[in-house]
Amino acid sequence: MELPFQTLQWVGGRPGHVSMIEQTLLPTQRVDHEVRDVLGMVDAIYRLAVRGAPAIGVAAAFGVMLGVQELRGLSPEETLGRTREIAATLAKARPTAVNLFWALDRMVARADREASAGADGDAIVVALFEEGHEIYREDRETCLRLGEVGAERISDGQTLLTHCNAGALATAGIGTALAPMYVAAHQGKRISVFADETRPLLQGARITAWELAQAGIDVTVITDNMAGHVMKSGKIDAVFVGSDRIARNGDVCNKIGTYSVAVLAKEHGIPFYVVAPLSTFDRELTDGSQIPIEERPEEEVAEGFGKRTAPVGAKVFNPAFDVTPAALVAGIVTEAGWIDRPNRERVEAVLREAGALTG
Amino acid sequence: MELPFQTLQWVGGRPGHVSMIEQTLLPTQRVDHEVRDVLGMVDAIYRLAVRGAPAIGVAAAFGVMLGVQELRGLSPEETLGRTREIAATLAKARPTAVNLFWALDRMVARADREASAGADGDAIVVALFEEGHEIYREDRETCLRLGEVGAERISDGQTLLTHCNAGALATAGIGTALAPMYVAAHQGKRISVFADETRPLLQGARITAWELAQAGIDVTVITDNMAGHVMKSGKIDAVFVGSDRIARNGDVCNKIGTYSVAVLAKEHGIPFYVVAPLSTFDRELTDGSQIPIEERPEEEVAEGFGKRTAPVGAKVFNPAFDVTPAALVAGIVTEAGWIDRPNRERVEAVLREAGALTG
Repeated sequence: MELPFQTLQWVGGRPGHVSMIEQTLLPTQRVDHEVRDVLGMVDAIYRLAVRGAPAIGVAAAFGVMLGVQELRGLSPEETLGRTREIAATLAKARPTAVNLFWALDRMVARADREASAGADGDAIVVALFEEGHEIYREDRETCLRLGEVGAERISDGQTLLTHCNAGALATAGIGTALAPMYVAAHQGKRISVFADETRPLLQGARITAWELAQAGIDVTVITDNMAGHVMKSGKIDAVFVGSDRIARNGDVCNKIGTYSVAVLAKEHGIPFYVVAPLSTFDRELTDGSQIPIEERPEEEVAEGFGKRTAPVGAKVFNPAFDVTPAALVAGIVTEAGWIDRPNRERVEAVLREAGALTG
Repeated sequence: MELPFQTLQWVGGRPGHVSMIEQTLLPTQRVDHEVRDVLGMVDAIYRLAVRGAPAIGVAAAFGVMLGVQELRGLSPEETLGRTREIAATLAKARPTAVNLFWALDRMVARADREASAGADGDAIVVALFEEGHEIYREDRETCLRLGEVGAERISDGQTLLTHCNAGALATAGIGTALAPMYVAAHQGKRISVFADETRPLLQGARITAWELAQAGIDVTVITDNMAGHVMKSGKIDAVFVGSDRIARNGDVCNKIGTYSVAVLAKEHGIPFYVVAPLSTFDRELTDGSQIPIEERPEEEVAEGFGKRTAPVGAKVFNPAFDVTPAALVAGIVTEAGWIDRPNRERVEAVLREAGALTG
């Protein structure tokens, strides 16, 4: 299934460039932003022109391709050294995005493997292009699979709530949390979606509402603080959110506000589902308390709309993420199937079977 | 105790006018808005230039004064008729503000009483001026008393969370939910406050943060969706919010998002307190399900910052209030003392003793 837009893609061969939807301008303007070098990709990731764990992974892989595409005639050691430098530069763009490191590690590992197997510098670059394109292709397949698995629990006529944007625009494919909605709609189920606007950066209002509407799905925007009232009025059948990082015990790190939604869902007996590719699980983390919470600039809260909304000099606290304890999660949708009532045992069983304990 | 600003006041004698802080321009500009006639007061109340249940009550009383101040030489019947017309006009400004009706009813009742006692038209107008000034004075006294009662449960070193603005700027005095904080600070207790920004109109960021900072109280602004994370991290000792309307069973109608805060407070074992004058109780309501929820324009959510934040044509749901069940309320602070674990029996006992079952 295809959506009427493409989040990011590699354009051309080698040399080529990356074209991405400039997400900071949504929903009023659709601008395709071209990225032609590594620092441009760091900037795009930092500015959130491209955002969402899987899309950041693909962007990072494409970033490595941008960095090595002009290299010719270097030794394997020199090519490997450049690849590592590029990866280190890209790694600084977002400190909490585990998919960023996952993709960069995978690119560097591929270069290493090629070098160990006796490839010359040019052959390593060719291999890095293969690897980057493969990461892109796999992401699209994974999204589709997440959608198929998640859609099993969506019935005709249901109304779902989501927070932030874990949609097509957070991936190179049809998304994570929104993928089950796209697949359900594609299967002919009539669904409606409530989208939390998701302060401070409004990814829900700007991006989720935009992409669902583009795809013809009924969507209603609410402010974050309306979710409890909407649930209490009986409108919501299930919550689907994405994740930036999941610990081995099933604790879920996601956009700030996700934890509040999970508590509210519990209070109202509404299943709270997390949709995430296996690459989101981090085996280094035994539980969510080990996840560092990025604090972002105060201006995102106090001047988030180009207009000062808090007094000059007022203190502002702006954590970008929170952690939802596994006990609040009814199920995690992965490409390997559902992990119901996640705990360490059930998470590790699925990851082990899939050979996918990352980190 | 005095704060370094005055929310609204009558300026001059008869004729006079109303001067109010133009709250839609906070926190970047402090502009005193002059209101000189009834329609100007309707506009100010509708636009939220003045907002908060008690301040709206005072504004309504002042609105009646503005409407009758030029009347001279009319019969008691004509004066009474004009007073009723003015009250009916003012009543349309905000459909859910019980204090609006309370103040208008009180003004009309005073005019009625004077007429029944044989007063002429001019004497009725004089009496309406007395009544309006008395409503203003009582509101200031009530705020101070709410502050004294509420401060009993605030200890030195505590951190409190509040939602929306039930502060001095919501009253003619030192506020309702914020009054205990002002009194506690005045008593020398060192307190800190987290203020939910309170979408869509950002009364928390714009108004609560402004007035607490003006008064020298440590305040940190967060987005609404951060409250759960902040509570989970152990930072909050108690929640204090105001109310627009309370049912006889203790169900509390307040700014949208209050219900979510109450559920989160319960989850974290944090006491959730409501601070409200007795005039906020409505004996016509046996429970909160009977409270009509005003829906306000979509643009408040989708274009709330002068910039479109949701796709054109996206559906938006914008309820202005929600209802928090009494079971989530640890205590209600009234000028007659605390109502702990409110239920119908305990609420009615306090109201009966105070002779204050309104409606």
